[in-house]
Amino acid sequence: MDSTQIALDVMGGDSAPHSTLVGALQACEGEGARRLPPERLLLVGDEPRIREELERIGATREGPVPDLAVRHASQAVAMDESPSSALRSKPDSSIAVCVGAVKSGEAAAMVSMGNTGAVVGSATLGLRTLTGVRRPGIAVTLGFTGRRVTLLDMGANIDPKPEHLLQYGLMGAVFARECLDVLAPRIGLLNIGEEASKGTSLLKSAHGLLEASRLDFVGNVEGGDLFGGIADVVVTDGFTGNVVLKLLESTSALMIDLVLGELRANGVDPDPAALQSLERKVDYSEVGGALLLGVAGVVVIGHGRSDANAVANALCLAGRALDAGVNTSIEEGVERAAREGVA
Amino acid sequence: MDSTQIALDVMGGDSAPHSTLVGALQACEGEGARRLPPERLLLVGDEPRIREELERIGATREGPVPDLAVRHASQAVAMDESPSSALRSKPDSSIAVCVGAVKSGEAAAMVSMGNTGAVVGSATLGLRTLTGVRRPGIAVTLGFTGRRVTLLDMGANIDPKPEHLLQYGLMGAVFARECLDVLAPRIGLLNIGEEASKGTSLLKSAHGLLEASRLDFVGNVEGGDLFGGIADVVVTDGFTGNVVLKLLESTSALMIDLVLGELRANGVDPDPAALQSLERKVDYSEVGGALLLGVAGVVVIGHGRSDANAVANALCLAGRALDAGVNTSIEEGVERAAREGVA
Repeated sequence: MDSTQIALDVMGGDSAPHSTLVGALQACEGEGARRLPPERLLLVGDEPRIREELERIGATREGPVPDLAVRHASQAVAMDESPSSALRSKPDSSIAVCVGAVKSGEAAAMVSMGNTGAVVGSATLGLRTLTGVRRPGIAVTLGFTGRRVTLLDMGANIDPKPEHLLQYGLMGAVFARECLDVLAPRIGLLNIGEEASKGTSLLKSAHGLLEASRLDFVGNVEGGDLFGGIADVVVTDGFTGNVVLKLLESTSALMIDLVLGELRANGVDPDPAALQSLERKVDYSEVGGALLLGVAGVVVIGHGRSDANAVANALCLAGRALDAGVNTSIEEGVERAAREGVA
Repeated sequence: MDSTQIALDVMGGDSAPHSTLVGALQACEGEGARRLPPERLLLVGDEPRIREELERIGATREGPVPDLAVRHASQAVAMDESPSSALRSKPDSSIAVCVGAVKSGEAAAMVSMGNTGAVVGSATLGLRTLTGVRRPGIAVTLGFTGRRVTLLDMGANIDPKPEHLLQYGLMGAVFARECLDVLAPRIGLLNIGEEASKGTSLLKSAHGLLEASRLDFVGNVEGGDLFGGIADVVVTDGFTGNVVLKLLESTSALMIDLVLGELRANGVDPDPAALQSLERKVDYSEVGGALLLGVAGVVVIGHGRSDANAVANALCLAGRALDAGVNTSIEEGVERAAREGVA
């Protein structure tokens, strides 16, 4: 029987290791789909620090802290460190040890809130791609004002070929169906007009491939229609995806500032609970994080700002992707498309 | 002496011809930089309809309607019409007649709130490019929450070469200096990381050219830093620019909905004046519209939703670009860069 363990990069994230450990404990104590048995967790990082922090957390809690497996990693990648230099100079970083655990089969998934570039680089180099998959892609599910859409690739592949975009459609559809409860995912292609003839030659070719596939391809989706409910999954190159993601992130922050400013100008001092609900409306990380799809292993990348709740969500997302057999479904889908001559 | 006339496409825009004509009258009656002498205006469109509408407007006003020159155009391009088919099938559209007036030298500028694709297509095909300019680009000034940045190209050139991006930097700098009062414009390159080595090969080459130029090049600007005050002008390819523009436009609308929802949930019914100030905070058309830079003539493209005030702004922007000699400065800048071996 294959491992079903999930390696957690305890050292990654702005408030690590505290928030990552509290998040891990939350995941162990959640209910239903939000629960992960403690024996499925593998904590990766500076072991003495992890033990010490767990003890501190335990002192403030009712009931015992569950016994969690710990794997020591002597190094940690800083959030603002250059990913390429971190990959070279820190072979024993918590990120590298997580990737190693997945590579060796000791774990089946990894979750990190750390340096995104280092996680993507380390996992892309360290893990083989799934059978038939040409290039991994990062899928992010944006929940802007409650309209959920999964966008990929968000930066793993900035100069893709048409076949890569087709495979992003296939992988995104599997993810939306298995992890987001979208029964029949509609796939769109980010473009600058609705007609098939629009866009660069890359996009025209990708449009043809997506149309010839078995996917429920709804055609081109313009920037203004991303949250229009037209598609559940929108495919794009990693350059555009990265620009869009970072733009939306900063816009969300401006948006909340604007709402707060207007509320205060109107003499309203919103209570913290209302504020949280507001943040959730523009929070793209509510589903738990981004997935690096296409590699042999489940890799969930959370935002560096993740709090304990977001860490718990990310762990549960990894568990769900594993239990649903997302990667097996991706390999089957890619194999079928190849057999049918689409890609 | 060259013409200083501005041709206004009276038929373009969601509430044309009413709002375009009221906007024209507003521009004639403004003060200082917001005033355009009536003799500089050339109204282009269905002449009987224009006369009739001007009479109707005159009946509701104090004082006489100034005498404005009218040029008849027997056709009009619908907002949702395919630009390419409109270009072929409507040679006497108000857009085509405006372009013709600029081409013949009868007017020096044109302003349209009509079908953007048709305006760009018609002006690009109908007007020669400025001496030395390789490809025109669309510059849009975004005023998101008060932080102003000019972005180009927004869709005229979806597959540019590095030299095009350099020229967009040169043209954007002239525009920001002459039309937006930015004394020393800082130029950035939209990219997915700060380092010069980031991005596609197009962007790496463009980075080198911009760095070698006399521009105040501040390097790469990431999607999340677009409104961070790092650069006054940000250069990008027309595909990414178009996606970003449409995304921001839809996000602005979501943003206002979100603010209103929160205000109402808190028992506040904002008065219309507060609402207007809110809309201005996220309104990218406050400066009057987009400019198609690089063609022989000043071409201002306003948003289809423009009200009379926005039309007046667009007319005054065209007047300002003309009076400041933006196109002469662009030709000088491009010529100097060529002489110095940069492009």
